[in-house]
Amino acid sequence: MSIVVTGDRPTGKLHLGHYAGSLQTRLMLQNSGNLKVIIIIADTQVLNNSIHKANDVKNNIIEIMKDYISLGINPDITTIFLQSQIPELFELTTYLSNLVSINEILRIPTIKIENDMYNSNLNMGFLNYPISQTADIALFGAEYVPVGVDQLPIIHFANDLIQKFNHSFNTAYLKTVNPLLSKTPKLNGIDGRNKMSKSLNNAIFLSDDEKTIKEKVFQMYTDPNHLKISDPGKIEGNVVFECLDVFHTNKNELNNLKEQYQKGGLGDTHLKNILFNDINDFLSPTREIREKLNNDYIIDILNTGTSKIKILAEESIQNIKSLIFK
Amino acid sequence: MSIVVTGDRPTGKLHLGHYAGSLQTRLMLQNSGNLKVIIIIADTQVLNNSIHKANDVKNNIIEIMKDYISLGINPDITTIFLQSQIPELFELTTYLSNLVSINEILRIPTIKIENDMYNSNLNMGFLNYPISQTADIALFGAEYVPVGVDQLPIIHFANDLIQKFNHSFNTAYLKTVNPLLSKTPKLNGIDGRNKMSKSLNNAIFLSDDEKTIKEKVFQMYTDPNHLKISDPGKIEGNVVFECLDVFHTNKNELNNLKEQYQKGGLGDTHLKNILFNDINDFLSPTREIREKLNNDYIIDILNTGTSKIKILAEESIQNIKSLIFK
Repeated sequence: MSIVVTGDRPTGKLHLGHYAGSLQTRLMLQNSGNLKVIIIIADTQVLNNSIHKANDVKNNIIEIMKDYISLGINPDITTIFLQSQIPELFELTTYLSNLVSINEILRIPTIKIENDMYNSNLNMGFLNYPISQTADIALFGAEYVPVGVDQLPIIHFANDLIQKFNHSFNTAYLKTVNPLLSKTPKLNGIDGRNKMSKSLNNAIFLSDDEKTIKEKVFQMYTDPNHLKISDPGKIEGNVVFECLDVFHTNKNELNNLKEQYQKGGLGDTHLKNILFNDINDFLSPTREIREKLNNDYIIDILNTGTSKIKILAEESIQNIKSLIFK
Repeated sequence: MSIVVTGDRPTGKLHLGHYAGSLQTRLMLQNSGNLKVIIIIADTQVLNNSIHKANDVKNNIIEIMKDYISLGINPDITTIFLQSQIPELFELTTYLSNLVSINEILRIPTIKIENDMYNSNLNMGFLNYPISQTADIALFGAEYVPVGVDQLPIIHFANDLIQKFNHSFNTAYLKTVNPLLSKTPKLNGIDGRNKMSKSLNNAIFLSDDEKTIKEKVFQMYTDPNHLKISDPGKIEGNVVFECLDVFHTNKNELNNLKEQYQKGGLGDTHLKNILFNDINDFLSPTREIREKLNNDYIIDILNTGTSKIKILAEESIQNIKSLIFK
C-alpha cells in the first residue's frame, strides 16, 4: 500500500482555505481505499520562524485535531502523529544535512525570499527546514505528497537529496516522492486582497458558529463596481464565487448564477445567502461531531497514532543507520 | 557532582597528540574524585565534513575505546557513549537552531575558515555543528569542557546560545559551561611541520609497537642546523624536546638536557634514545592491557555507558520540551 505524507503546522484553528487547499484532498486520498495517509502535526517545525509560537502550540494541536476528526479524517485509516515525539526525524535530518550545501538551500525560492527578507541572515531552523521536510518524507517511505505549486521546488530538492543519499550509500532504500498537485488554487480571505489566513484576520474557520459564518460571508469582497442589482458583475477576484466553486455542489446551478451575475440582475445579498447556506450545510454536521469530541479522546487518538509511527520510525532509522555505518 | 563533557570524533586510532592535548587532562579530571566525566564518541559529528568517513567508523570506535581503557579511563567513573545512539542530542540541536542565525555561525573562526575554503558553500552538517556541540554540552548540564585555545569561540557561542534559550523560556534550566584550557599546546608530528595527525602520516599512535615507536622517534625532526654533536642546538620547534616535555617525568634532568643541547655537546641520537625509552615506558603497560581487551568486552562497556546516558538524555529532553511547549 502506497504511503502519502502530509501535515500542518499547528499555528491555529483550520479554516476554509485549509479545507480547499489540502483537507479535501486528504479526505479523498484516505477514502480511496488503497493509500495509507500519514498526517504530521509539525509542532517542531512550527518553531522555525519564531520559537515563541511554542506558547500556543498545545491548544492549537487540540483544535486542529478536532478540525480533522469532525471533518471526516478517520484515525483508523489515517495516522495522525506529533512531530516532536519522533526524534528519529531529527536524527535523519542530521544525517541528510551532511549531503547538502548552503547554496543548495538558498536556491529554493521560498527560502530565498525569506532570506532576502531577513537581510541574508536567516534563522538556522528555517535554513534546515527543507532538509527536515525531506526527512519527513523519506523516513516513512512516502510515495506521494499533496502540495501546492509553490511547494514543487521543495519536492525537487527532497528528491535530489534522497537520490544523493542512495547514491552515496549504494542503496535504493530511500524512495523518491511524487507530488500530488492540488487542483484548487489557494482561497482568498473575505477581504479579497490576501490568501485566507488566521494572522490576516480574513478567515472563516471550520469551527466558526452559524452566526459568525453569516457575518463573515456578508463581509465578503465581491465586485466593487457591482453597485445596483441590475449592474453586470465580475466573477474574477470575487471571493463569493471562489467559495461557491468549492462549496456549491450543484455545478449547473452555479454556472447559471455566474452567467446571470455577469449579465446583471443578480444581487450580492442573494448570492451571499446561497453561499452562507452552502458553507453552513457543509459545516453543520461537523459542528455536531465537534461538540461531542472531548480533549481526552483527541489526545488518545494522537497518542495512538504517534505510537504507531514511533515503531515505523525506529525500524526505518535503524535501517538507514546500518546503511550509513556499514 | 559537577559534570565534564568531552569527546572525540572516531576518525582513527588515537596518538600522542591526543594524549598530550586531552587524554592526560581527562585522566586527571576522572581521578580528581569530585567530577563526573562524560566522553562522547562523536560518530555522528564525524560525518559533518564527509559522510564517507562513515565507512571506517565502526573500527575506529573499537580502536579508540581500546586506547581509552588501556590508558586508564575507568568506565566505572567515566561514562563513554556513542553519539549516534542518543537522538535526544539531535532533537535539542533542532530546538536550539531556531535561536541562531546564519551570520552568528559564520562569525565563529573555525567555521569562517572552513567556509572560505569551500567558497562560501559550506556543508549544512558543518554549519550546524556549533549548535550540535552546544547540545552536547547543554543536554547533560556540563559545567566544564576541556578545550584548546582555538575552541574558545565555540564555547562563547555555546554559552550565548544557552543564555538565549534560558532567556526565551524564562528559565535557568540550561547551564552555561566553563572551558578548562589545556596547558599543553598541540603536539607537532614527527615531521616538525604540522600538528600530529593521522591523515598527515606524522603520528605516533598509542597502539604502536616498540619497533614502530623507535623508528618514528628516530625519524623525528630536531634542529636541521645541529649537524655535529658539538654544535649548539635549538629547543624551539624541536619535536624531540616537545615530546620530552610531555613524557620525561624528571623535569630537572630535562632542564639539564636542554641546557647541554643549547650549548652543544649533546647528540640527537642520545636524546632520541631517551625519548624512545620515555614513550615506550609510558606505553608498555598500556600495551599489555590492550592485548587482553577483546571486542565484546569493549562493546559491552560502550553499551553500558550509552544506556546510562540514554536515561539522562530522555529525562533532560523531556524537561527541555516541557519548558518550550508550556
